[in-house]
Amino acid sequence: VRFVGRRYDTVTFLSDYGLEDEFVGVVKSVIRDIARHVAVIDLTHGIAPHDVRAGALTLARSVQYLASGVVVAVVDPGVGTDRRAVAVEVAAGEGVFVGPDNGLLAPAVALAGGAGRAVVLTNDEYQLAAPGATFAGRDVFAPAAAHLCNGVDLAELGDTVDPGLLLPGTVPLARSEGGGLAAEVLWVDRFGNAQLNLGTEDVAAWGDQIRVRVGDTTRVATVTQSYGELGAGAIGLVVDSYGLLALSLDRRSAADALGLGAGDAVRLEPLTDGGEDDRVVTPTHLAPPQRRR
Amino acid sequence: VRFVGRRYDTVTFLSDYGLEDEFVGVVKSVIRDIARHVAVIDLTHGIAPHDVRAGALTLARSVQYLASGVVVAVVDPGVGTDRRAVAVEVAAGEGVFVGPDNGLLAPAVALAGGAGRAVVLTNDEYQLAAPGATFAGRDVFAPAAAHLCNGVDLAELGDTVDPGLLLPGTVPLARSEGGGLAAEVLWVDRFGNAQLNLGTEDVAAWGDQIRVRVGDTTRVATVTQSYGELGAGAIGLVVDSYGLLALSLDRRSAADALGLGAGDAVRLEPLTDGGEDDRVVTPTHLAPPQRRR
Amino acid sequence: VRFVGRRYDTVTFLSDYGLEDEFVGVVKSVIRDIARHVAVIDLTHGIAPHDVRAGALTLARSVQYLASGVVVAVVDPGVGTDRRAVAVEVAAGEGVFVGPDNGLLAPAVALAGGAGRAVVLTNDEYQLAAPGATFAGRDVFAPAAAHLCNGVDLAELGDTVDPGLLLPGTVPLARSEGGGLAAEVLWVDRFGNAQLNLGTEDVAAWGDQIRVRVGDTTRVATVTQSYGELGAGAIGLVVDSYGLLALSLDRRSAADALGLGAGDAVRLEPLTDGGEDDRVVTPTHLAPPQRRR
Repeated sequence: VRFVGRRYDTVTFLSDYGLEDEFVGVVKSVIRDIARHVAVIDLTHGIAPHDVRAGALTLARSVQYLASGVVVAVVDPGVGTDRRAVAVEVAAGEGVFVGPDNGLLAPAVALAGGAGRAVVLTNDEYQLAAPGATFAGRDVFAPAAAHLCNGVDLAELGDTVDPGLLLPGTVPLARSEGGGLAAEVLWVDRFGNAQLNLGTEDVAAWGDQIRVRVGDTTRVATVTQSYGELGAGAIGLVVDSYGLLALSLDRRSAADALGLGAGDAVRLEPLTDGGEDDRVVTPTHLAPPQRRR
Repeated sequence: VRFVGRRYDTVTFLSDYGLEDEFVGVVKSVIRDIARHVAVIDLTHGIAPHDVRAGALTLARSVQYLASGVVVAVVDPGVGTDRRAVAVEVAAGEGVFVGPDNGLLAPAVALAGGAGRAVVLTNDEYQLAAPGATFAGRDVFAPAAAHLCNGVDLAELGDTVDPGLLLPGTVPLARSEGGGLAAEVLWVDRFGNAQLNLGTEDVAAWGDQIRVRVGDTTRVATVTQSYGELGAGAIGLVVDSYGLLALSLDRRSAADALGLGAGDAVRLEPLTDGGEDDRVVTPTHLAPPQRRR
Repeated sequence: VRFVGRRYDTVTFLSDYGLEDEFVGVVKSVIRDIARHVAVIDLTHGIAPHDVRAGALTLARSVQYLASGVVVAVVDPGVGTDRRAVAVEVAAGEGVFVGPDNGLLAPAVALAGGAGRAVVLTNDEYQLAAPGATFAGRDVFAPAAAHLCNGVDLAELGDTVDPGLLLPGTVPLARSEGGGLAAEVLWVDRFGNAQLNLGTEDVAAWGDQIRVRVGDTTRVATVTQSYGELGAGAIGLVVDSYGLLALSLDRRSAADALGLGAGDAVRLEPLTDGGEDDRVVTPTHLAPPQRRR
C-alpha cells in the first residue's frame, strides 16, 4: 500500500542551477512526466554556485509565503559524495522539504515549526537510473518530489532518520559590542539594498539617526519605511519587507555605494555615544515613522 | 455579496525584480496560495531597476498578445510612499491591470481600448499584513490579482477613481526636422536590434536606402524585412515584429556597433537631400522588399 | 475534419531569446490564448544568440527527459528568409518538434528515434498575421504548437516533406590521433564544467589518471564520479550526468582555470605514453571509483 500519503499539487523549486543551462527545465520535465497535475513555482535559481548559506537564507525568508506542497531545494556542492539526500516533513504534512542534508533546509524547516518525519532518499525505486552521479536534482530530488505529489508516503522513499540528526543551518546573529551592534549583511538584493541581521526593535532606543560603520567609512543613516522618503544620496536603514533593517539609497544601490556584499560586517552605533565624527550633535527625537501604504 | 466579478485563470506578470532574488517566486506563491487555479505567465522580469519607461513600453508592445486575465506590472521606485496602487479594467472586463499608478500601465491600457472602471487598492482586507512596506508586489498586487481571479469584484478592492485621473504614460514621438526625422531608440533587444519610434510609412517616400546619423557617425541603411537579407556588416532598418523600424545587423549587435542605448537620438534622412557624405549618389529604386515566410 | 490528431498538454520551449526581453512571455501568452489547457516548460532560453549548435546539443542532452508533447525550439538567425519552418513527429506521435529547419532539431529528433511525419509550416491559417517577419516564435511556432496541442493534425499545418530532406545537425566526434584522443568541448555549464565528446569507455584502458592538453597547458586529470572527491585544485575528468567526461574542479570553474569554452580542442593521452612532461611516472592502478549516492 504505497499511496497512503497526502497528495500535493505544488512544487516550489530553489537552486543554484541558474537559467543558462537546461538543468531547471529538465528537473521540471521529470516532475511533469511523473506527476502531470503538479505546478512548479521557481522560487529562484539565481543562488550563487555552491552558496549553501545564501540558499538557506533565501528559503528562510520565503517559507512563510510558500504555497503548501513540496519544496525542492538544491545547492549541493557535495553531490555524488556521501552527503545525504533527505526529505523532511513540516507542519503536520502541510509541506515536505526535499534536498541535500547540508544545512540548506534547516533554517526554513525550523521557521516552519520544525521537522516532523524525515527520511534519507535511499530507495532507488523512486529515482532515475543515470550514467553519472552529478545531477541529483534530476535523478533523486525531482522524482522524490513528484512521487510525494502523487501520494507516495514519505516513508517509502528511504530510511527514516531522527530529524534531530539533520545538519543544522547557521544564521548569523548580531551582537552587542561596546555600546554598539556588530551586525552582518545577510543579503544584497537586485536593487542594492543590504539587509542586516537586525530588526527595528534592536535599535529602537537610538532614535532614527544611527551611525553606520563599514570598514573605514562612517555614515549617518536614517531609519525609515520607504526608499522614496530618503533624500538624494542619503543612506537609509529602511525597514524591509521582512521587518529587518536594510542599508538603502533611493533609486541607487547602497551596496555599491558602500562596497558591501553578503557576509560583510557592519557596525551600528547610537549617535549620542560621542563618536569622534558625530555630525548630528543633538539628534531630534522624532515620532515613530509612519507606515504608509 | 463579494464574488460578483468575472473569474480569471491567467495572471501575466512583468516587473523589474530580476530572477536572482526570490521576489518573483514569492509573488507567484502568494497568488497560488489564494487562487489555486491560476497560471502565471512571466512576461519578463528583466526591466532595468526603476525603469518605468522601459516597463511601460514592454507592456505596450505585448498587450495585444496577452491572454485575457489579470496583468500585474511592478516597476515601482515609489513603493511605500504615497504613490497610489491601482487596478484598472480594460476591454469590458476582459482584462484588469494591477500595479502602481506611475505611468507604467497607461500606454498598455490605452492600447487595450482605454480604462473602464478603476480603483485604488485601499482595502487591506485583500492585502497581506507585512512588517515593512517595501514589497507591494507580495503584499498588495499579488493578493489583489489572485482575489480578482477568484471572482472578487474590482470595486471590493478599494476606492473607485476616475480613470481620467490616472497618471499618463509618455511615449516619445519622432518629429520632422529640416527634411529629416528626429527619432529615438525605444528599445535595444538581446540581439542588439535598436527599435526606433518610426514605422515604414514614415520613410516610405525615401526608397529603401536611408541615411542614419547617430552622434557624429553617418551610415547608409537598407530597409529590409529580415536580418538575413543584409550583407555582412551592412546596417539595416529592418521592419521588426511590431511593424517599427529597427537598426540591425545580420547576426551581430547593431546597438553595440553604433553605440546605441534606449532613449538615444537617431536622425534619419533621405539619401537624395544632398548630404555632404553621400556614399550612394544615385540610389537605385528597388521593388518593395518581399515578405518571405 | 481537423481535430483528428492526438491532443497534448505540454509544450517544452527552448530558445536563444533570453529573459530580459518579453519574447518568451509573449510566446507563452500566444500559446495560452489558443490552448488554455497547456503547461509550458522552459527548457532554457539562455542559448547564446544565434548559436544553433549549442541549442542542438542542449536539446539532444535533454530529449530523453522531456515529458511527451510538443517541443518548440527557436534559435533562428535566418528568420524571415527562405529557411523553412517545420514540425516533425517522433516516437509514433509521442512528441512533435517545432522550429526552424537549420539543424537545431536534428540531433534530438535522431535520439528520439528519428523523424516520422514532417511538414513545412506553410498554412497561414495556423499563424498570426504580423506587421513584420522577424518573430517567428510568436507568429509561426507558438500557434503551430498550440494548435497541435488542441488536436489539429500535423498534416493541417502545411506541406508534407520527406523527413530525410531535413537539414542534418552535426555533433562533433572525437578521433584517435597518435595514441591519444583529439576531443572537443561540447558545453561549459554554469559551474564551469567543460563537457567533452568522450565517454568513460573511450578512456577505460588508460586507468584513472589521464594527461590533458589544452593549448600549451598540460595537466594530469583524475577520472572520478563526483566533484567532491577531487582535492583542492585537482583537475578531474568527472563522469557527468550524461555519462560523458567533463573537465572539472571541486567548487571552482575548470573552464575558467583552463581557459576553455565550447568548441575548444582538448587532447587526452594515456600517462604511459612517455610524454615529455609526465609528472606521475608509474601510475598506481586504482580500483574503479565507487559510485556513491
